[in-house]
Amino acid sequence: MIDDSKNTVSSPSGDPWLLTPGPLTTSLSVKQAMLHDYGSRDASFIDLNARILERLVAIIHGEGSYVSVPLQGSGTFAVEAMIGNFVPADGKLLILINGAYGQRIAKICDYYRRSYRVQESAEDVPVDCAQLDATLGADHDISHVVVVHCETTSGILNPIAEVAQVAARHARSLLIDSMSAFGALPLDAREIEFDAVVASSNKCLEGAPGMGFCVARESALVAAEGNSPSLVLDLYDQWRALQRNRQWRFTPPTHVLLAFDQALNEFEAEGGVAGRGRRYRENCDLLIDGMRALGFKTLLPDELQAPIIITFHMPTNPLFDFAAFYDGLKERGYVIYPGKLTVADSFRMGCIGRLHRRQIQGALDAVAGTLSQFGIERIES
Amino acid sequence: MIDDSKNTVSSPSGDPWLLTPGPLTTSLSVKQAMLHDYGSRDASFIDLNARILERLVAIIHGEGSYVSVPLQGSGTFAVEAMIGNFVPADGKLLILINGAYGQRIAKICDYYRRSYRVQESAEDVPVDCAQLDATLGADHDISHVVVVHCETTSGILNPIAEVAQVAARHARSLLIDSMSAFGALPLDAREIEFDAVVASSNKCLEGAPGMGFCVARESALVAAEGNSPSLVLDLYDQWRALQRNRQWRFTPPTHVLLAFDQALNEFEAEGGVAGRGRRYRENCDLLIDGMRALGFKTLLPDELQAPIIITFHMPTNPLFDFAAFYDGLKERGYVIYPGKLTVADSFRMGCIGRLHRRQIQGALDAVAGTLSQFGIERIES
Repeated sequence: MIDDSKNTVSSPSGDPWLLTPGPLTTSLSVKQAMLHDYGSRDASFIDLNARILERLVAIIHGEGSYVSVPLQGSGTFAVEAMIGNFVPADGKLLILINGAYGQRIAKICDYYRRSYRVQESAEDVPVDCAQLDATLGADHDISHVVVVHCETTSGILNPIAEVAQVAARHARSLLIDSMSAFGALPLDAREIEFDAVVASSNKCLEGAPGMGFCVARESALVAAEGNSPSLVLDLYDQWRALQRNRQWRFTPPTHVLLAFDQALNEFEAEGGVAGRGRRYRENCDLLIDGMRALGFKTLLPDELQAPIIITFHMPTNPLFDFAAFYDGLKERGYVIYPGKLTVADSFRMGCIGRLHRRQIQGALDAVAGTLSQFGIERIES
Repeated sequence: MIDDSKNTVSSPSGDPWLLTPGPLTTSLSVKQAMLHDYGSRDASFIDLNARILERLVAIIHGEGSYVSVPLQGSGTFAVEAMIGNFVPADGKLLILINGAYGQRIAKICDYYRRSYRVQESAEDVPVDCAQLDATLGADHDISHVVVVHCETTSGILNPIAEVAQVAARHARSLLIDSMSAFGALPLDAREIEFDAVVASSNKCLEGAPGMGFCVARESALVAAEGNSPSLVLDLYDQWRALQRNRQWRFTPPTHVLLAFDQALNEFEAEGGVAGRGRRYRENCDLLIDGMRALGFKTLLPDELQAPIIITFHMPTNPLFDFAAFYDGLKERGYVIYPGKLTVADSFRMGCIGRLHRRQIQGALDAVAGTLSQFGIERIES
């Protein structure tokens, strides 16, 4: 394995480092795993596939009662599949919203004509568990609750464990969108009660984008038979197919799976969730400290900040132009998320992917250099 | 570009050559294009994306009236999206079936509760256009017709041009699943009238699997607004998003797109549809001649055989064991489709992907060597 962390100027591939919500910088060895063509129905590929699925269950300590089902497409494909499979036509979903990804689940319910109710808070306010408790006590039609683990919109961490306790107390099924947190923030099925979680290959597990997956309680998946309004998104049907012949129903993104297998090797070598989460936390702290030293202010207080992506208030200094800032960082080898947010005039920088202390320090130097080019020594916002 | 065709023993990646319906062998340069991480909302990626979409329209000579919409996932995702977007809830689809891929469209209609009618023929019989004419004359509820260009089940070529003429005469909208033919068999929108065609990155265009696309008549796509039962498969919504900001709505498989861009470069260098189709035809003829010389018999008569995948009758010689045959070929560096078909006791060998005369000759030598290992000199079936 090449030690990517040694390089500060550019990645081993010569590309800018990605400080975005994803797709992310992956290791060179993960990308090199894609230099092979595998037949998707050949035994070697089938074994690799089985190995991946087993490891995803192990990450949540779900051995024995949980199973994992892979799905082609982006993370949102997996989210839509989870809603379509687990919430039956006569069910009702309570959606806990504090950002764009929660909003998107409501949009999916509109498409699917599934009955739903929304509990919404501002993008910088975590899910309110007392309100959840009251809502579940009052509305007996609600069969399922869905929560976004880390809302990538702001980078806020939602209180998954408390949400799960309240849902369990009211005997409702909990679904989790852990897209940007899975693999870096703990989610232990032995301690937290939930029926399904979805995530993707290209966030904290540091594979290439192109597939998502659902890790589901087997009994809940069995009960989901016949629910899916879509053939390609039918997780139950895909799971049954895996049981029959260990294969994907439809052509898998073989190269993405080769990369994912290697990414999981590197995830385990780093110490799994604990090790991966530790590096991201160090990246996050270093980035926040450095940006604060330059005068930037975070949207979220530190106790609500997940070590995934950080939202900074847009400086009000008239010398600061965001487009020029973005370009200045890119010229220096660092790509940040190009868009502004709705929650506040703000911008975001990610700290996940194959980034280490050196790259975060390099990004901070690039920020300082770009500001200095603007004639700004320190942001006073 | 490395000339892969010079190597007979194994591909430059060291992998067996894939003589399958896909995923296929791709060139080393296509795979090497995946050694980079791009931000999906960064200008360089957005430009690459636009370049790919334009070229897909050009392949069918649809400039000016057709647009292309990319979609994450396998080819079946694109097929389901085409049905869901173009056939409205009050429409009725006539499905022309002569294989598993036509059957799959009926299954999609079952999921979507779309009204449909089936015109089915055996897997070795092409679509009957006289019957189509009679059906469209009699059933005025039918709003759309869907046909599979090359049915990968048997490798049969369906008479797309005649089907299009009949549909146009009856003023019905034609949808085409050209998954395994797009890029190798001509489909010219100036000559053949259709509203939408779907295909994928990893068949005759020789990219990596992980995305499909739909090339649609713009007016038909405009009329499809609000039809899709699925958010992630909503082609209309994705198209509008591309018009707004040239971006994918949800994380694209960036590495697959980098590979696809390079694959399209190599497609054009080979002379586009004419050049690609010529090589596949030569591969197909060589494979069939060589297999016949060894005593194998094709399922289809030559005039119905598309130069994509060839179905051979299973030999009845008791010394011939298919599993051992598959393994013998694999040991020699050639992977064929591992499954048998339902249509007849048969097996399949593909002739598409980065395969040239040398690899087909190598595969034939591997067949002869494996037979000789079984003590069979010549198949007498």
